[in-house]
Amino acid sequence: MAGFKINKLCVIGIGSIGGSVACALRAAGSVKTIIGVGRNIENLKRAKSLNVIDDYTTDIKLAVADSDVVLIATPLGAMQDVLTQLASSIPDRCVLTDVGSAKQHVIDAVKNAFGELPKNFVPGHPIAGTEKSGVEAAYAELFKERRVILTPLPETDKAALETVRQMWLTSGAELVEMQAKHHDEVLADTSHLPHMLAYALVDTLARMDDSREIFEFAAGGFRDFTRIASSDPQMWHDICIANREQLANALHAFNADLQRLTKAVEEGDSDFLKETFTRAKKARDQFCG
Amino acid sequence: MAGFKINKLCVIGIGSIGGSVACALRAAGSVKTIIGVGRNIENLKRAKSLNVIDDYTTDIKLAVADSDVVLIATPLGAMQDVLTQLASSIPDRCVLTDVGSAKQHVIDAVKNAFGELPKNFVPGHPIAGTEKSGVEAAYAELFKERRVILTPLPETDKAALETVRQMWLTSGAELVEMQAKHHDEVLADTSHLPHMLAYALVDTLARMDDSREIFEFAAGGFRDFTRIASSDPQMWHDICIANREQLANALHAFNADLQRLTKAVEEGDSDFLKETFTRAKKARDQFCG
Repeated sequence: MAGFKINKLCVIGIGSIGGSVACALRAAGSVKTIIGVGRNIENLKRAKSLNVIDDYTTDIKLAVADSDVVLIATPLGAMQDVLTQLASSIPDRCVLTDVGSAKQHVIDAVKNAFGELPKNFVPGHPIAGTEKSGVEAAYAELFKERRVILTPLPETDKAALETVRQMWLTSGAELVEMQAKHHDEVLADTSHLPHMLAYALVDTLARMDDSREIFEFAAGGFRDFTRIASSDPQMWHDICIANREQLANALHAFNADLQRLTKAVEEGDSDFLKETFTRAKKARDQFCG
Repeated sequence: MAGFKINKLCVIGIGSIGGSVACALRAAGSVKTIIGVGRNIENLKRAKSLNVIDDYTTDIKLAVADSDVVLIATPLGAMQDVLTQLASSIPDRCVLTDVGSAKQHVIDAVKNAFGELPKNFVPGHPIAGTEKSGVEAAYAELFKERRVILTPLPETDKAALETVRQMWLTSGAELVEMQAKHHDEVLADTSHLPHMLAYALVDTLARMDDSREIFEFAAGGFRDFTRIASSDPQMWHDICIANREQLANALHAFNADLQRLTKAVEEGDSDFLKETFTRAKKARDQFCG
């Protein structure tokens, strides 16, 4: 990692993820200039005043002209438009990477914008973040000891891959490589599905007649369980749309299991309930201990 | 609260709840002698060595003979047997209360054991606890600023109710009174249903072929979301059985909503997804913020 340095980094989308990459690389002394691009000028101003970025513009083409690495950290729904602008402006030598939560969707969007998969494109996804949004939620340690999944393609240039690997290692992350489709399945199970359950639970209770009283009696367990339901609705809308095939598979598997559990509750099926809870506790203690 | 004092408190079931009541009352100087009753002699020994209780016995009848307050803090599944023993041994003047998570079930069990509802019986339920079990998880501050729901009956003696009220106020709790049936509905929604979802999610993932890898990529959100799946399986089995009617209602309401959400994911129904997530985030931020 020693000596790894990006001359000019362009971060498109200065939220908690994009902002944290900027903070982490700056803290490591691994970047000379960071230019931020976004649509919300107030957020960009805050990012500059917080010293997360050196400068900003709303003009993607201007920003990427002399950049060495472009990191797309916008919500998934904004990527196609960003990529279309990049296709006609990004220098050939510039490394392009992203942090999208649905990799096949981003790969398809890149192909759609560029007409082919550029050799300097390295799809990536940090398994990190909080329910908070905006540059105020950015900090240099966000990726420390967290996994970053890269899903390089047969077309991906080895040097471009190495640059993106060094970028994340410098940010404190651990790297894993896998196929895009497998990434999308794993994330549907471990992240997208739990978010659906948290949103659905809060919404089910919120629409009850006595919802105010119900939430008053919610204890600590409920607070933890539903924390992820405070995540940005637009971002999660985009993830659902972008990974809808894998997420629907995960939802169907869960729905079937929950209906079986509901039947066991109705019938007072002690054996089934005890076996299910015991198996779940064992798995949870073993893996999340 | 000044001057509130129990001469002899008998706690049946020295887990995190029963143990914490003992710790809280002792810390407040509001109890002279605490006798612990349980079936696990090792746990009782630990409770005595930790100074949670003054002494212990496995003989309920012996323990309650000269007690002023008897607190039942066993799992729900053990209560009927405990109550049957109490029916033939508890002194008339002794106040009887419990901490069970399903109030109608406990009331029915008391009626079944005593042949009628004793006037000194005050059903109660502290909305507190952790996923940890045993006397090691007991501490004096567990109930501080937490709600305790009492569901007194028409038969309940006012002086007995006041004793139980003072016991919880002295422990730092806030008190609420409501009907047993309403308690069971509210707890099914806010506590029992979320536990079912957490157990079901972990179990669904644990039974997948690549479960080991799946859990490896679970991030902080997943850890929080599934924390309650590390709760004691026997205890949650008992709660499911004891409150199965209200829990089944809650599960049916949730199942219907989750199936509607699944359909929206499959169809890429942007409006439905955005509206649901926005409504849920607003409710969660408002009530748990």
